[in-house]
Amino acid sequence: MNYILQVQCLDRKGLISKISGTLFQQDFNIIEMKEHVEKEGNLFFMRCEFTGESGIADLKTVLEDKLIDAKISVHTNKKKDVVVFATKEHHCLADLLIRNHFGEMNANIKCVIANHNDLKDITEKFGVPFHLVSHLEKSKPEFEAELIKIARSYQPDYLVLAKFLRILSPDFVSQFPEKIVNIHHSFLPAFIGANPYRQAFDRGIKIIGATAHFVTDDLDEGPILSQKTIPVDHSFTADDMKKAGKETERLALAEALELVFEDRVFVSENKTIIFK
Amino acid sequence: MNYILQVQCLDRKGLISKISGTLFQQDFNIIEMKEHVEKEGNLFFMRCEFTGESGIADLKTVLEDKLIDAKISVHTNKKKDVVVFATKEHHCLADLLIRNHFGEMNANIKCVIANHNDLKDITEKFGVPFHLVSHLEKSKPEFEAELIKIARSYQPDYLVLAKFLRILSPDFVSQFPEKIVNIHHSFLPAFIGANPYRQAFDRGIKIIGATAHFVTDDLDEGPILSQKTIPVDHSFTADDMKKAGKETERLALAEALELVFEDRVFVSENKTIIFK
Amino acid sequence: MNYILQVQCLDRKGLISKISGTLFQQDFNIIEMKEHVEKEGNLFFMRCEFTGESGIADLKTVLEDKLIDAKISVHTNKKKDVVVFATKEHHCLADLLIRNHFGEMNANIKCVIANHNDLKDITEKFGVPFHLVSHLEKSKPEFEAELIKIARSYQPDYLVLAKFLRILSPDFVSQFPEKIVNIHHSFLPAFIGANPYRQAFDRGIKIIGATAHFVTDDLDEGPILSQKTIPVDHSFTADDMKKAGKETERLALAEALELVFEDRVFVSENKTIIFK
Amino acid sequence: MNYILQVQCLDRKGLISKISGTLFQQDFNIIEMKEHVEKEGNLFFMRCEFTGESGIADLKTVLEDKLIDAKISVHTNKKKDVVVFATKEHHCLADLLIRNHFGEMNANIKCVIANHNDLKDITEKFGVPFHLVSHLEKSKPEFEAELIKIARSYQPDYLVLAKFLRILSPDFVSQFPEKIVNIHHSFLPAFIGANPYRQAFDRGIKIIGATAHFVTDDLDEGPILSQKTIPVDHSFTADDMKKAGKETERLALAEALELVFEDRVFVSENKTIIFK
Repeated sequence: MNYILQVQCLDRKGLISKISGTLFQQDFNIIEMKEHVEKEGNLFFMRCEFTGESGIADLKTVLEDKLIDAKISVHTNKKKDVVVFATKEHHCLADLLIRNHFGEMNANIKCVIANHNDLKDITEKFGVPFHLVSHLEKSKPEFEAELIKIARSYQPDYLVLAKFLRILSPDFVSQFPEKIVNIHHSFLPAFIGANPYRQAFDRGIKIIGATAHFVTDDLDEGPILSQKTIPVDHSFTADDMKKAGKETERLALAEALELVFEDRVFVSENKTIIFK
Repeated sequence: MNYILQVQCLDRKGLISKISGTLFQQDFNIIEMKEHVEKEGNLFFMRCEFTGESGIADLKTVLEDKLIDAKISVHTNKKKDVVVFATKEHHCLADLLIRNHFGEMNANIKCVIANHNDLKDITEKFGVPFHLVSHLEKSKPEFEAELIKIARSYQPDYLVLAKFLRILSPDFVSQFPEKIVNIHHSFLPAFIGANPYRQAFDRGIKIIGATAHFVTDDLDEGPILSQKTIPVDHSFTADDMKKAGKETERLALAEALELVFEDRVFVSENKTIIFK
Repeated sequence: MNYILQVQCLDRKGLISKISGTLFQQDFNIIEMKEHVEKEGNLFFMRCEFTGESGIADLKTVLEDKLIDAKISVHTNKKKDVVVFATKEHHCLADLLIRNHFGEMNANIKCVIANHNDLKDITEKFGVPFHLVSHLEKSKPEFEAELIKIARSYQPDYLVLAKFLRILSPDFVSQFPEKIVNIHHSFLPAFIGANPYRQAFDRGIKIIGATAHFVTDDLDEGPILSQKTIPVDHSFTADDMKKAGKETERLALAEALELVFEDRVFVSENKTIIFK
Repeated sequence: MNYILQVQCLDRKGLISKISGTLFQQDFNIIEMKEHVEKEGNLFFMRCEFTGESGIADLKTVLEDKLIDAKISVHTNKKKDVVVFATKEHHCLADLLIRNHFGEMNANIKCVIANHNDLKDITEKFGVPFHLVSHLEKSKPEFEAELIKIARSYQPDYLVLAKFLRILSPDFVSQFPEKIVNIHHSFLPAFIGANPYRQAFDRGIKIIGATAHFVTDDLDEGPILSQKTIPVDHSFTADDMKKAGKETERLALAEALELVFEDRVFVSENKTIIFK
């Protein structure tokens, strides 16, 4: 049986020795252990994959005793349950549906929720439930209440915004802390907000990019998970950039989700520590 | 003899035919011709390399007659004369000095002007004059007047800011329109202003970059010539980013200068059209 | 109406003038013209996009008169008809099916032919005909005769080998010159033949790649259309490389096909000239 | 005081616990610990940076007692002594001389040995001794004996072949196992041997690259340290590729040397394990 241990605490002498010693005493075998010390904050982060035949029943308790004030979690390799939000653009969603269909993600897409009907056909081709929740003719709280009701019915581990073009309220976001992943079509912090490719075109930049990040109250300001860039030049119209950017969006989102779904990500003060 | 023709005008039918026809009539041989039409502004740009044994005495006049309201220039392949400004960091300057020493640029560095003495030794190793112009104990206009006096004495075609950490006034900049190239240590428009690596670290970004651009009145807002990025992760401190970023700065500046010195760059509405 | 002109001939003075002059006389408007002169062979290549309301009935004839010994073709922007060959791996095929479904390619996938049944389901989800042609219990000529019979029934402009793991005979290939595009899972010419990721792992390389190329008689030796690389390190097993490499394969094939389907590719002496 | 511990042995349960426990008992503080398990060979590799005020006198002995059959080394952070070999091309050597001059490498260049005189001037500008050892009018053993005599007089930790165009004999190489770093101007294993850019041009590839590697008896077959690639297209002549490739050569060599000089590299069965 494979397990993943995550430890986050103030740095101090002997942490690795205590953790690895505990695993050894309980007859576990470490497959991979990665640590990081954030020097300015004196913070210690560790992700450890290990195997063992005995259970992990008291591992968390034993470690919490030995490592005062540490945040400790132990995961089995169970696939995450995921709800995907989309609007009209298909490139990210289709990529996720393909990966889901062929079992390439450590996750199961439980359903797709969209505020337009354009992506119903592609979603249902893959046997994934599709829910239309229009944002029209209702208040934002009403709209979000509907979204949340449907999403919660699937008990998701994560929500993925795969080009979902409605901005979620702080109230919505606060219900899923560090559980919502968004793809933004620029290399943040450049070009926050609407129409980043148009902004990029107007500024005459020579690279465009995409950023996958956890969603927080501040629009496009959450902890960054993955970024990809590609070169462009003067021959690209804003539309050409949008088209070329689809690949970077798709790749940045796919990479971010792989990292999140494999419990490789820590969040600390609006930044991510990621053990690839 | 090799020549370069640059044409910039409103787009209309028959431009390529007229230009290539004129070159053919005057017995020139086209080596490379590149065009771009900027659709939103209906603007036509062309760079053409050609050879010929007859002179180019009346080529500009003939073309101006045929192409009403076109901005036309014809260059020989003469090396540009360049004055480099620096402060304390050596990586960009040393790279330029090496390229200059081995004749790898289509330019000659006439002198280096710096507001500190740190780079005097490396500059003079290569037989290039070094001028110290301290910014201390004088007004900005006085400081800039000194810079300009020395720079002008070399009759430079271009000024290169190779990590020159003083901000030039609009008055200074206006004297050298489209003639000052700067290297900024971020992928603009992200992280304008001071300490971009510190800003990048604090934002937790996963790529860092550098941007070479023409200098205009607006700090870090001029037409972009070249951008380079490299991946980083949580293990990079702000200082690590600064160190890693030196390579991108050096490469972005070197690429930009190669393009500028070979007359490959047009500027239009704060954007560059570059025929590589 | 949009047209594409392709010209290939020995280089000589006045070519651009003659071609652009002819287009101007026939009242066409050039949108984009790109040329290349291959100096060692003194060869001239040009691709020109132009628009016009009059027909192109005699354009080819007129140009052939003016440009002796030139290979000239004029295309309308009609979508290409394509037959895709596959085996068991889905990543390239699924990507093409998605692009085809949403009309993102300048091509229509007429059918998929595979020597295993694994990809029948995903193909038919998108309403594309699927043909199983097993290579078992028959000779290679019999196998290929079946493939050709089915493929020809769709009158394809191009054949795409989207991870088709059978090697085609020279006899097969000779029937579709410069019409078969393959994706090979290494940066050719490194790791020709079987199991390139295993070869890459054994050699301990730090980058892996993929190559899309036209198929010729020599295995993995045809003209290269597109190559992509990504960094790897010692932590990658051969299987990890294979997984990571899927993205580069998908991107290299997609890019190559976009270039081919938009008539941007010339082939000359086992090399491609590509006007992006 | 900062130290680096390197451990290489067969993988077994409890290794990390024993090593980190020993460091903890001796009152050392781990700054960074990185491990890798090579699954096919069941091999364990670890690099650990740690600090401590007590000495490391008996650390190696204690660990060797606890970890049977392990290859263990403990380094202080002392700069490596390096001898650089070159021929005529300046770009890699000049880059190293600049880095050396400004103290940017964890190494000191003790001298440059070249078989031509072209690089004498640039070397001596930086106060580094230059030795001309011509390969003309002498046998290969005589030539290499001279090289070795001069190199050994500087007691180097590493030899760096910075575009040294003579092939070293197995006899020479065997005297410096895992101590000679070479830069080859292709992405190995493509284009082994002479004129790789010419080979690349003739093959019509769309990416070129460079490879830094340890030198072994087999030409261009040693363990790879670093590889870099850049895109090219049909417009590049073989000479253009050579020029563009200089940047990748310089970057690949500089990266490789940084890794080697900081004791981040293990060699195992012709492959490198590198803890960045």
